[in-house]
Amino acid sequence: MSDRLETVQVYLVGAGPGDPELLTVKALRAIQQADILVYDRLVGEDILELAPAEAQRIFVGKESGCHPVPQDRINALLVGLASPGRTVVRLKGGDPFVFGRGSEEAEELRNNAIPYEVIPGITAASGCLAEFGVPLTHRGMATSVRLVTGHQRAGEMLDLNWKSLADPDTTLVLYMALANLEEISDRLIEAGLPPETPAAAIRGGTMPGQQLCTGTLADLPQRVLAAGLNPPALIVVGRVAAFARDRGNRPADITADFAAFVREAGHA
Amino acid sequence: MSDRLETVQVYLVGAGPGDPELLTVKALRAIQQADILVYDRLVGEDILELAPAEAQRIFVGKESGCHPVPQDRINALLVGLASPGRTVVRLKGGDPFVFGRGSEEAEELRNNAIPYEVIPGITAASGCLAEFGVPLTHRGMATSVRLVTGHQRAGEMLDLNWKSLADPDTTLVLYMALANLEEISDRLIEAGLPPETPAAAIRGGTMPGQQLCTGTLADLPQRVLAAGLNPPALIVVGRVAAFARDRGNRPADITADFAAFVREAGHA
Repeated sequence: MSDRLETVQVYLVGAGPGDPELLTVKALRAIQQADILVYDRLVGEDILELAPAEAQRIFVGKESGCHPVPQDRINALLVGLASPGRTVVRLKGGDPFVFGRGSEEAEELRNNAIPYEVIPGITAASGCLAEFGVPLTHRGMATSVRLVTGHQRAGEMLDLNWKSLADPDTTLVLYMALANLEEISDRLIEAGLPPETPAAAIRGGTMPGQQLCTGTLADLPQRVLAAGLNPPALIVVGRVAAFARDRGNRPADITADFAAFVREAGHA
Repeated sequence: MSDRLETVQVYLVGAGPGDPELLTVKALRAIQQADILVYDRLVGEDILELAPAEAQRIFVGKESGCHPVPQDRINALLVGLASPGRTVVRLKGGDPFVFGRGSEEAEELRNNAIPYEVIPGITAASGCLAEFGVPLTHRGMATSVRLVTGHQRAGEMLDLNWKSLADPDTTLVLYMALANLEEISDRLIEAGLPPETPAAAIRGGTMPGQQLCTGTLADLPQRVLAAGLNPPALIVVGRVAAFARDRGNRPADITADFAAFVREAGHA
């Protein structure tokens, strides 16, 4: 992390769950000052448009041929772009320090003595669940929260401690878990979590076109298939998932108000 | 949750970890439109000042005699204040749906058919740890995150599943845990977590006067005592805590920039 007296060259910014209004003010201000934006596939157009028109935009979500850009290449890119007097904004969906590999980018910047700052974002577990009325904790229903990733590398098995995860008093939120949902459901039930435990899957939460699919731990995989929900999606398992309710699409007028706010604020 | 066509009467707003710049844009806009603010002790002056000067401010952090205001009294207050054409903003430190009992307030509003909206906030685990350079996940060091509360009711024992919490691959974040830190440390070590596991305590993270105390699971209680750290504080246990570094106080000039931004944005 940079000394506060140095001028920040790279901001590692959490873009939040999708709705541009869920950016922090600090994130919005960094984006408005960007000379270069480095972003991946979870960052929407609405957010990219908040940067100055002349800012350079570099997409690192996928290379040609649909392969993800290797993390060490992104690290090297950030180091290469950093320069005194230039503001590089590395935009990541959600929070850069929650399953975002932002800490590897921070480490690389630190090792290269580049002044940087981390701006946290609303992580999907908080943003997407709030959108559908699901609290992460609720007296008598959930006294702790667990965030895990349901994604594994190609050809590898999901390496999770199922016994420990199968806790009825905990809200379990699985990031990037849709592809392995059936296995996750089976393993949690085997490990003792009641099959009737409420569960939900959310895709594109807080964005236009958001989708919610609700059910139980036992039947969610089949409901997700029936609903045609595609990755990436967030899965929540626990009593609090029973609060989930579909509110339909987000209306466009929120965005119009927000645009006016941003226009004015950009003059500051 | 209200139907989107209805006008929201009560916003349950996460105020984030303390730094007003870590409010979401949506939260800032709700505060700027507030007729009434209902807030508790974790919400700072800087944030309260963002509301219109004429907005009514109601403190529900403590009653006379230092007793907390009972949750059912707060619930009833919100229902009583809600009225068409009036904007009530219920401000809570962090995220209203993470150990904030915001879901009980939401439930009460729902049961009384009052249109409300939840605006998530940066929870302390994300905001305070990012401030000190600690990622919640890091490849090879922490593959999952666990949020628990270390607070118990007067006269009760801490009722946590220590065996399950003592996982070296998880970042464990304990909210409101300072008073029970010695017991927490002992129990986690008994349950198998290595005594040399890095650990840190943070008080007032992201705010002027913030304090960081670092050590190991074994010696943190004694270091916290020596440093004179007082509640409320956040505790983090796990390999990632080794990244923690003190950056000193937050400078005032961030706040000056922010003030200019808010002034302009308030005209939108």
